[in-house]
Amino acid sequence: MQHTVHDFEAAARDKLDPVHVDFIAGGARDEITVRANEAAFGRLQLLPRVLRGSAVRDLDITLLGSRARMPVLLSPTAFHKLVYPEGELATVRAAAAAGAIMIASMASTVAVGEIADAARATDSDAQLWFQLYIQPDLEITEALVRRAVDAGCTALVVTVDSPVLGAGERNRRNGFHDLPPGLRCENLVDLRDGERGHVRQIAMSPELNWEHIDWLRGVTELPVLLKGVLHPEDARLAVRHGADGLLLSNHGGRQLDTVPATLELLPEILAAVAGRIPIVLDGGVRRGTDVVKALALGASAVGIGRPVMWALAQGGEEGVRRLLELLRDELDDTLALCGASGLADLTPDLVRVPAWAPVPGPAVAPGSDHRFGGGAVV
Amino acid sequence: MQHTVHDFEAAARDKLDPVHVDFIAGGARDEITVRANEAAFGRLQLLPRVLRGSAVRDLDITLLGSRARMPVLLSPTAFHKLVYPEGELATVRAAAAAGAIMIASMASTVAVGEIADAARATDSDAQLWFQLYIQPDLEITEALVRRAVDAGCTALVVTVDSPVLGAGERNRRNGFHDLPPGLRCENLVDLRDGERGHVRQIAMSPELNWEHIDWLRGVTELPVLLKGVLHPEDARLAVRHGADGLLLSNHGGRQLDTVPATLELLPEILAAVAGRIPIVLDGGVRRGTDVVKALALGASAVGIGRPVMWALAQGGEEGVRRLLELLRDELDDTLALCGASGLADLTPDLVRVPAWAPVPGPAVAPGSDHRFGGGAVV
Amino acid sequence: MQHTVHDFEAAARDKLDPVHVDFIAGGARDEITVRANEAAFGRLQLLPRVLRGSAVRDLDITLLGSRARMPVLLSPTAFHKLVYPEGELATVRAAAAAGAIMIASMASTVAVGEIADAARATDSDAQLWFQLYIQPDLEITEALVRRAVDAGCTALVVTVDSPVLGAGERNRRNGFHDLPPGLRCENLVDLRDGERGHVRQIAMSPELNWEHIDWLRGVTELPVLLKGVLHPEDARLAVRHGADGLLLSNHGGRQLDTVPATLELLPEILAAVAGRIPIVLDGGVRRGTDVVKALALGASAVGIGRPVMWALAQGGEEGVRRLLELLRDELDDTLALCGASGLADLTPDLVRVPAWAPVPGPAVAPGSDHRFGGGAVV
Amino acid sequence: MQHTVHDFEAAARDKLDPVHVDFIAGGARDEITVRANEAAFGRLQLLPRVLRGSAVRDLDITLLGSRARMPVLLSPTAFHKLVYPEGELATVRAAAAAGAIMIASMASTVAVGEIADAARATDSDAQLWFQLYIQPDLEITEALVRRAVDAGCTALVVTVDSPVLGAGERNRRNGFHDLPPGLRCENLVDLRDGERGHVRQIAMSPELNWEHIDWLRGVTELPVLLKGVLHPEDARLAVRHGADGLLLSNHGGRQLDTVPATLELLPEILAAVAGRIPIVLDGGVRRGTDVVKALALGASAVGIGRPVMWALAQGGEEGVRRLLELLRDELDDTLALCGASGLADLTPDLVRVPAWAPVPGPAVAPGSDHRFGGGAVV
Repeated sequence: MQHTVHDFEAAARDKLDPVHVDFIAGGARDEITVRANEAAFGRLQLLPRVLRGSAVRDLDITLLGSRARMPVLLSPTAFHKLVYPEGELATVRAAAAAGAIMIASMASTVAVGEIADAARATDSDAQLWFQLYIQPDLEITEALVRRAVDAGCTALVVTVDSPVLGAGERNRRNGFHDLPPGLRCENLVDLRDGERGHVRQIAMSPELNWEHIDWLRGVTELPVLLKGVLHPEDARLAVRHGADGLLLSNHGGRQLDTVPATLELLPEILAAVAGRIPIVLDGGVRRGTDVVKALALGASAVGIGRPVMWALAQGGEEGVRRLLELLRDELDDTLALCGASGLADLTPDLVRVPAWAPVPGPAVAPGSDHRFGGGAVV
Repeated sequence: MQHTVHDFEAAARDKLDPVHVDFIAGGARDEITVRANEAAFGRLQLLPRVLRGSAVRDLDITLLGSRARMPVLLSPTAFHKLVYPEGELATVRAAAAAGAIMIASMASTVAVGEIADAARATDSDAQLWFQLYIQPDLEITEALVRRAVDAGCTALVVTVDSPVLGAGERNRRNGFHDLPPGLRCENLVDLRDGERGHVRQIAMSPELNWEHIDWLRGVTELPVLLKGVLHPEDARLAVRHGADGLLLSNHGGRQLDTVPATLELLPEILAAVAGRIPIVLDGGVRRGTDVVKALALGASAVGIGRPVMWALAQGGEEGVRRLLELLRDELDDTLALCGASGLADLTPDLVRVPAWAPVPGPAVAPGSDHRFGGGAVV
Repeated sequence: MQHTVHDFEAAARDKLDPVHVDFIAGGARDEITVRANEAAFGRLQLLPRVLRGSAVRDLDITLLGSRARMPVLLSPTAFHKLVYPEGELATVRAAAAAGAIMIASMASTVAVGEIADAARATDSDAQLWFQLYIQPDLEITEALVRRAVDAGCTALVVTVDSPVLGAGERNRRNGFHDLPPGLRCENLVDLRDGERGHVRQIAMSPELNWEHIDWLRGVTELPVLLKGVLHPEDARLAVRHGADGLLLSNHGGRQLDTVPATLELLPEILAAVAGRIPIVLDGGVRRGTDVVKALALGASAVGIGRPVMWALAQGGEEGVRRLLELLRDELDDTLALCGASGLADLTPDLVRVPAWAPVPGPAVAPGSDHRFGGGAVV
Repeated sequence: MQHTVHDFEAAARDKLDPVHVDFIAGGARDEITVRANEAAFGRLQLLPRVLRGSAVRDLDITLLGSRARMPVLLSPTAFHKLVYPEGELATVRAAAAAGAIMIASMASTVAVGEIADAARATDSDAQLWFQLYIQPDLEITEALVRRAVDAGCTALVVTVDSPVLGAGERNRRNGFHDLPPGLRCENLVDLRDGERGHVRQIAMSPELNWEHIDWLRGVTELPVLLKGVLHPEDARLAVRHGADGLLLSNHGGRQLDTVPATLELLPEILAAVAGRIPIVLDGGVRRGTDVVKALALGASAVGIGRPVMWALAQGGEEGVRRLLELLRDELDDTLALCGASGLADLTPDLVRVPAWAPVPGPAVAPGSDHRFGGGAVV
């Protein structure tokens, strides 16, 4: 039996090919950021209120027009069929059952249209979002957007932290470069009129820039969130270029190693956008207390990535369903223990940073006055 | 032979069912707070005075009218018969012998009246206090208070951190949900007139609020302490609602995980109540130096929880008696080494926090100026 | 072969009764301070100067009139015969050969007069000091002082941190309470006229106070250093009561556990005495770099304790001689690498504290404005 | 296959005599600085920009007139024939192939002239620099400089942190004091007219001072960098004495133990030279992210030492070539992930120091106001 999110990982590790375990668990280079994400939550402290709760806690959110029954999204993760035969179909059914927003990955092994159909076949009104890598060939990108729109997706999540593919050294050591026979990125099939069975590779381009975001804003009415903005200056640019939200993510530590934990960056990113757009955070969320900490600091919701893959591997739809129930129960429990009747009661004063924990000190200022953090310079 | 408080735990672990060991040792979720409680004492440093001691140290205290021969209370712990046949009777006899205040748990396996009788049968004038979970059915609560009053308890300690039961994942993994046959919460038996052998479950209700405290103030003359207030704002509310004292406790890390160590919170809670009511602290007290640190910072007394259970398991009344003697000896030794003639000499300048230790940085302020601890935000 | 101070410990452990190893290596309670002493040196950083050295470094010091060829004293340690048959005679011959000041312990297993004779039998002009526990029976104390004076000791080091005996739990577990047959505290023999073979116990009294220091000042012309002052307020009192120097020591972590490393306290103690008296520091000195760090911060010299015992156990006089040569070589090497021609070149700017290292934050101020270190309080 | 710089070390350890492994891997005393160098990079965080990259990154630099195709220099390391028969010839060919500046060690096992010939034999325009220990016999020093000039070296790197040889305790334990038969310091052969096969020992002299630097400035037109300046005051003196650049190095932790990581010192050293001369940093560079961090903070380039030895041991010229390709690829990857088109885009705002990381606090000021880092003193 799985009593914690981590239990799903342990169970999945017993079932999966170690090469695939490495693909899921691994990150870029020395995996410093992978570890930092979880560690940041453990260091942050909660300071609960007492004697002011209510019998039932309201966990509903509405995010950019999408309603959900819990503030935990399924962040985009690739290749669900790698760990479970039904792949994304199992995942989306579990998400729908839990009333959680799923962000379908552009690199899904089931086409977004079929994922959406499976979601609609449940009696849930949970929403599906679509994660997009803008392709240098804009015609192809437009075709992808059209597929997401046709599938009924209600938001686009554009990944901007991948000018090149992150260096997963575990995969290199394992020689894991291709999907097993029979699996493919179904959204990348036959993107041009008249094609039959032509599967494209996802192109990652360092030449993408803010004009591509402007262009995208012009070809779709859907809300657009940017995923992977970490620098406050880029957060300000995102607002200026009309982004409707940010998914504050370091790609689970899979792109650039040694970037800070997203939780560490949250206060600065919130300050940079100054309330104009919502921030969703992923990276290291494993506990109900983690969700509460991110929301108390100001995030509108959080996302989970690897846990979904572990739960899917462990028990398919049923596994993911139990994972989401577990997180909902922990979240509800934490709200009760914090004296909160609902998410709106999660205020920043409930959170405490011990002095020895990483805090986002002032960035090193450009110019001759070089300094390291807050330390004065002789 | 037990030379330290920790030795009692080691001895008890040899005797007890591992499931019961887990019940005692465990805490909520990842047990981060369980570990934080003890670690906080280890990090705090003592800066002793020299050449000003006296031959004998005075360890007596008077707390809310109750006199005691040492500033170490027995914090409320449940189910003493689980670890030793005589249960709370053995505990209270040892407490009385040591002149220590015992706070009988509402979840005791001996009725509070019998505990009080056992205490009175010794020739000690040590006092008994009663820990109370306010029950949503106020008639039941009133019956419980009456039992405590009738037993001669001289204070009530109302637990306010338990709107729901803490998530002890060890217990869940062990399937430990019920007391063994023959044991029951004796205070919960026959609380309504005319009942015969009817045992109630202790109800934990998230709907309790400050009006319940006001109500309780109206039905008893006893001093009322609140146990589990951690947020300074709630400490101020406690004063405003007439609480006579606070037992600054995080429930031994058994309720909400990742709350700070109580020792870390002590300065803020003291500042919040501004000397109007006494603060007793529990959580992680294992050494005479720990007692001195808490008192030097401003606590009026400390409580111990798990150590009592380990000592009871190890040696019954004799075990708890030796535990309390050991703590008294260590405390006396520490006072001597600090150049103190008594508890009044324990001033804050005897305590030192290394810069790398957790300090209660400013809570994150509400509003748009989000910040993480003391770090400036770009 | 021993290449480092630590190597002597390893060699000694192979030779000694584990009970005696524990006696030497152990400290009070959890031995937090024992570990802190060494750790503090490792954290402090050196920032060397270049291109300004000289062919030879001058390591001589004159301390309260006593000349020495190196700024490393042998701090008082008890019972040298416990680890080597010749006991303190071997130690003092090695110290004399190295030109190092030895502080003979009042609890030596050779009488101070014989130690002095052995020193004089070498052709060294190295000085002998005497460590004193003031005995409540002042006549006895005076007899002890007279013995030290008669032996030619040139300073008294009065231990003030021992109102009670430190709690060495290793010794308690080992049942090590008495010297083996044939060994005794030779300075405590026949202290009163006409006695024959009467050995006193060393009395530790919590009733000692500053008047005893005043009294001592009246019965001897020797310079008096106080050993064990840790609180800056007591350092100021020491100056006021005419102390000629301080041996800043936490008794190697053997008295009160959780006191700071002496190195951490050095800046504050220096500030408190404001240059009026010299400060010698012991506790954790194991490397030439350690000596340089303490001296660069402002100490006049350092002392070593356990290393002498290990070296004595390993190789008697020859062992201690090689230990002192090793330290002298390391010290000389460090001076050269710091661009120093002698001890006078060791200025505070050569030392650097990383921000994460313990720093002596402001003590908690008395009064209502309780605070924990530098953290602001809500 | 080697996927990381560390993999080369692992492979080399399998091949080399453990005594030689210790010679390469080891450092001075407790090797605290050895570990600090690498750890400092791991703690520093990157805060990448997005949506502003370009298809190709420009990694070229021009440093004191020397052009290179990557900002990674081969720092001087001794005795390449110890680990690979061709020695420095293999190394320089690999460096030339990569377009990287190699700093030939004065203690090379191939004469600098032959190293230069081997470099010229490739079709690369990569430059060779020469590392110099100024010898007390200035005639000898001048002969060495002439050899470097004759060989076509385009800069001199004068090591100033070695008034004495660093204490490599591993070498002492291993009894490793001499090169194996057949190997010698070829630059030290026949330095005086008419000598035949006379090999000098490299003299390390504590008597070197700034006048030697002034003298050297007078005997050569080559740019002179000082290697081993760590104190900001010495950095200012270096500028004043006409140094053309600094190689900010702690000798890989091989000279004075417990000096800070060079990365920690970089901001202060940059502030001290105030842009007047370039700073190259070595010590702990193992990743492309490390290079980016140093350059973003303001270094003009970085150097690598041990990795070259490991790669040479592992695979000779081919090994070093692959090492440099690996670092170039990682660097290029990191630039792309930081949204940089070239090295000029690496600005200090890309770097972040967590609050718990070592920061160069103010040095302890001389005078009576002793303080430890930033901590206030009571």
